[in-house]
Amino acid sequence: MNDTKLIDIATALGISITTVSKALKGYPDVGSKTREKVFEMAATLNYRPNLNAISLRTNETKTIGVIIPAMVHHFFSSVLNGIIEEAERRGYLVITLQSSEKYELERKQIELLQIKRVDGILMSLSNETDDFSHITNAINNGISVVLFDKIAKLVNCSKVIINDRKAAYDATTFLINKGYKRIAHFRGSLVPQNSIDRFLGYKKALEDNGIPFDSRLVYMCNHNTDFEDGYDKAKQMMEDHNDVDAVFAITDLVAIGIINYLNEAKIKVPDQIGVFGFSNWFMSTVISPKLTTIDQPGTAIGQRAASILIDEIIQIKEHKTVTYQIVELPTTIIERESTKRN
Amino acid sequence: MNDTKLIDIATALGISITTVSKALKGYPDVGSKTREKVFEMAATLNYRPNLNAISLRTNETKTIGVIIPAMVHHFFSSVLNGIIEEAERRGYLVITLQSSEKYELERKQIELLQIKRVDGILMSLSNETDDFSHITNAINNGISVVLFDKIAKLVNCSKVIINDRKAAYDATTFLINKGYKRIAHFRGSLVPQNSIDRFLGYKKALEDNGIPFDSRLVYMCNHNTDFEDGYDKAKQMMEDHNDVDAVFAITDLVAIGIINYLNEAKIKVPDQIGVFGFSNWFMSTVISPKLTTIDQPGTAIGQRAASILIDEIIQIKEHKTVTYQIVELPTTIIERESTKRN
Repeated sequence: MNDTKLIDIATALGISITTVSKALKGYPDVGSKTREKVFEMAATLNYRPNLNAISLRTNETKTIGVIIPAMVHHFFSSVLNGIIEEAERRGYLVITLQSSEKYELERKQIELLQIKRVDGILMSLSNETDDFSHITNAINNGISVVLFDKIAKLVNCSKVIINDRKAAYDATTFLINKGYKRIAHFRGSLVPQNSIDRFLGYKKALEDNGIPFDSRLVYMCNHNTDFEDGYDKAKQMMEDHNDVDAVFAITDLVAIGIINYLNEAKIKVPDQIGVFGFSNWFMSTVISPKLTTIDQPGTAIGQRAASILIDEIIQIKEHKTVTYQIVELPTTIIERESTKRN
Repeated sequence: MNDTKLIDIATALGISITTVSKALKGYPDVGSKTREKVFEMAATLNYRPNLNAISLRTNETKTIGVIIPAMVHHFFSSVLNGIIEEAERRGYLVITLQSSEKYELERKQIELLQIKRVDGILMSLSNETDDFSHITNAINNGISVVLFDKIAKLVNCSKVIINDRKAAYDATTFLINKGYKRIAHFRGSLVPQNSIDRFLGYKKALEDNGIPFDSRLVYMCNHNTDFEDGYDKAKQMMEDHNDVDAVFAITDLVAIGIINYLNEAKIKVPDQIGVFGFSNWFMSTVISPKLTTIDQPGTAIGQRAASILIDEIIQIKEHKTVTYQIVELPTTIIERESTKRN
């Protein structure tokens, strides 16, 4: 684009050409302050290093790929927020793709990211995904992959998760301790691990508290586990089992659908029916009654997953041994109005 | 990574090597079905073209950059959804950065995207941005830039917007037609064009309907125009002017803060005070009372902005003249419960 040379930047800043060159390539032995100064001066002098040429030499693109099931989703936008923050801090850019909960799309996207030679990939699986060879292939090809939230236990790589089973166990126990006895569960579909784990946590809590498990009180949402699922299945549940006195829902969105139906049907929440969500979306604080839920730390999950991925990318580059980690971030119960009984 | 050659892909599919090569480089004269087949076969044969090498030859990265003020924001995640969909359809990848409403960060990010040699940049400005030289510099450097939503009128490039002034005029007129007379406005800060335009639309509607404009009824939110702004300033407004009978808020988030305060203070919405939002976030349908608002078509804005950007990238590449467009997408009033009077 122009002829300004590295030497001009080095002269202007009173540092060595090597330092300028290393800074522009994102080498870790150049401090972040120096790196910033070099980028500022490069901008001032209108210098554009050809980073694609650099990446050919260093075999790095300083870019990571992210595949999430959906963008317009509070949890995943929080995770992406955490990923982008951490990547920016470490000098990486983030390419984002959304699988729209489709296995076929996810499979093509992981392929595309490899063709684009990203340095690593962060993924949360689509609800449809029950074959993991596209992920193991990527790992076998030498690409670092870290799974988060919706993971596959069978894939050998680092994972950042919450303990879904424990969180669901805690939620159900909380409802039992509030005096609710006939507790339904609105679960996700059969495949995703978090859907299975939340169901198992619910079931175990009932059993440990001497409440017989009744499979008829388990309603399965469709793949999207959305607002309409909660609304429609709450209606069906009240027709089938009007003795239900609480529902533990797989997501806040489903829980909010349930509350909307119950409000319309003039069934009092929490007095007649308690409702417990999962995620702690912002909207759980603005509906009436405010929703009791499990706080799922999206931004922290994103930051941690990106941090581990970048560590592994560097370890591979430096020919060090990578030890996969399973990081489990803590969840907490956020008690609000939807489970308070008089 | 391995030695599989283009010829293996060509032989397997019974097409020419040229077609395979063109498909892998994303040339427009290869149909999308063929392109897909080539990518699938490349994956099956575990072939990885070095796209960075290709981009050095073609001077393209098939990547676009997006700078948005915030990720965890329904409107911007909808826009990003539209951008990613359109980019995917046209064979481009999307690098996303968030300015967090900071001018300094935005300036560095547009620089970084140029250093990374993205083919074009989509931007919505931070609320702080009142100098546009970083954008005009990028354009002068030959990078295609399309602004959306929070734009700068002074920057000469294509823009995808809504007519904020008209939408605000329509919202205020709607309140007046419902019989509300003492209408406050919770506006954004002084700099962003959409904040200015929504304020001007509100003011004009009052004047056109013979209601004197009272500057004391205009409350300015902080840079983030969030829930707390609505809540806190609604409290202040009720102390200052208990004769106010409606509020037109700059965003749904502010409007929901207002409703939350009024609900807590047992002030009836819509009977005592009507509340009108802006954006049509999902959560405006789940609060009580449900929020009347302006539908701002986020996904359509993202799709259109990405489509125009990619068109311009191709035009520049083919040395054709680029004619900048100002595209204004229509908004509609979504009437719900927060403005219905008995």
